[in-house]
Amino acid sequence: MGRVTERRRVVRLRDGVVSERPDTLVAEEPLEIRLNGKPLAVTMRTPGDDFALAAGFLVSEGVLGRPEELANIVYCAGATEQADGTVRNSYNVVDVRLSPGVPVPDITLERNVYTTSSCGLCGKASLDAVRTTARWPVSGDFPPLEPEVLAALPDRLRAAQRVFDRTGGLHAAALFSPEGELLDLREDVGRHNAVDKLVGRALTRGDLPLSRTVLLVSGRASFELAQKAVMAGVPVLAAVSAPSSLAVDLAAETGLTLVGFLRGPSMNVYAGEHRVALGVRRT
Amino acid sequence: MGRVTERRRVVRLRDGVVSERPDTLVAEEPLEIRLNGKPLAVTMRTPGDDFALAAGFLVSEGVLGRPEELANIVYCAGATEQADGTVRNSYNVVDVRLSPGVPVPDITLERNVYTTSSCGLCGKASLDAVRTTARWPVSGDFPPLEPEVLAALPDRLRAAQRVFDRTGGLHAAALFSPEGELLDLREDVGRHNAVDKLVGRALTRGDLPLSRTVLLVSGRASFELAQKAVMAGVPVLAAVSAPSSLAVDLAAETGLTLVGFLRGPSMNVYAGEHRVALGVRRT
Repeated sequence: MGRVTERRRVVRLRDGVVSERPDTLVAEEPLEIRLNGKPLAVTMRTPGDDFALAAGFLVSEGVLGRPEELANIVYCAGATEQADGTVRNSYNVVDVRLSPGVPVPDITLERNVYTTSSCGLCGKASLDAVRTTARWPVSGDFPPLEPEVLAALPDRLRAAQRVFDRTGGLHAAALFSPEGELLDLREDVGRHNAVDKLVGRALTRGDLPLSRTVLLVSGRASFELAQKAVMAGVPVLAAVSAPSSLAVDLAAETGLTLVGFLRGPSMNVYAGEHRVALGVRRT
Repeated sequence: MGRVTERRRVVRLRDGVVSERPDTLVAEEPLEIRLNGKPLAVTMRTPGDDFALAAGFLVSEGVLGRPEELANIVYCAGATEQADGTVRNSYNVVDVRLSPGVPVPDITLERNVYTTSSCGLCGKASLDAVRTTARWPVSGDFPPLEPEVLAALPDRLRAAQRVFDRTGGLHAAALFSPEGELLDLREDVGRHNAVDKLVGRALTRGDLPLSRTVLLVSGRASFELAQKAVMAGVPVLAAVSAPSSLAVDLAAETGLTLVGFLRGPSMNVYAGEHRVALGVRRT
């Protein structure tokens, strides 16, 4: 467990010269998330913070919202039977147990379970699914962010990324205060996993909804990431690269502020611009 | 259908100046893949080439391997019922029908279905699952690639990416000949979708296994992408960024050549280096 990086032999070609050496890679392993003993989902993730990942995943799915709803999370010790019949803990299967009385949802094994929507499968149905399962509205009580504060976040994220420097292979997600202070950061092969880990840690600390935070992700902003922000009560999602159409639509519909192409002092605000202090300089 | 990009209003901040204008975003919509009428998976994808995406997904899962195994693929016209009771085709649900006699697999709704493996859930089980379901060995009949040929591929990929230039939001995957000729290219919000679209097109053309091609992906090389390469019989997978540990392990175990950090003349070869003509310059 906790194997964030692994070493492998690599043949390097640089300036026409070939050499062999050990290389540090980001670790990737499957994680099965069980809910009250029943398999729910499998995600390929970087080991570490697995309990937070499982808890955050369940926040994103609308199952968990308050720490007291979570009874406990354990690694399934007997989950891995070896060829010789002995049992080993792979630390790749976690079981989340809900507190008595907390409703166990009927979630299929697929992450995006919009297939049962009565209006069929479309972007609109995906937006509706988030709106109907969200526990909190996106907060209206948020001080307008100075563009200079937003502009400084990507450098702070990168400076705090410890594993990326060694592997070049990790996505990162971080929570910042409205003043630009780094509150928490997670790295993972999957950007959605990094966000789930942040949200799961916030759940167990009693910090949900994250109504006074900015969530910054290292790459693009997909629908799934916007969904996770909304489900955790995050009012501002910022991404270093482009958002998708459905991410913008979800932000516009729920009131989430969505900033894309955040690169130093230049940025695009796709929704919820009232939370960014732009007014006086508007042309 | 085929909405590869969509327009949204954006508030831009550049050099302290705020302006509003329309922006072009990559389109993202859910796609439900059904197999013989039964829901199988939902993926968030960029609309277009949906039949190829579905077919390629089923190649990756080991269901399809030869064009005659595929009876047909249709959009489910009645899949979207409106609030007023009328029915509209969302073009977001496709049904893949297998030819008579082709076994319908027992696939759960999760893409990574290693939970039933007798040895539990671990990286090793994930590797074994690919090895036991692969239809072809990774080809041994492949001319060693000149490093100069590999070095030229990322620029060719980027030059051929039409949608990325407008949105900055798409991943790309492309197939090249051993001589570096671009054979096919797909763009999508999801890198795995772009690869599935390539593979699905190859299936219907009767081009599987893709034993004389190099697959180049625009970002990182995860286990999932290495799996798709192996299942399609691709002997060389190259990525512009880092591979994960499990992608390298799968490549080493199956004989796949895995090149990472392919950036002009510099590259790392993580497995299968016999397919890269490096010998004479080795230090």
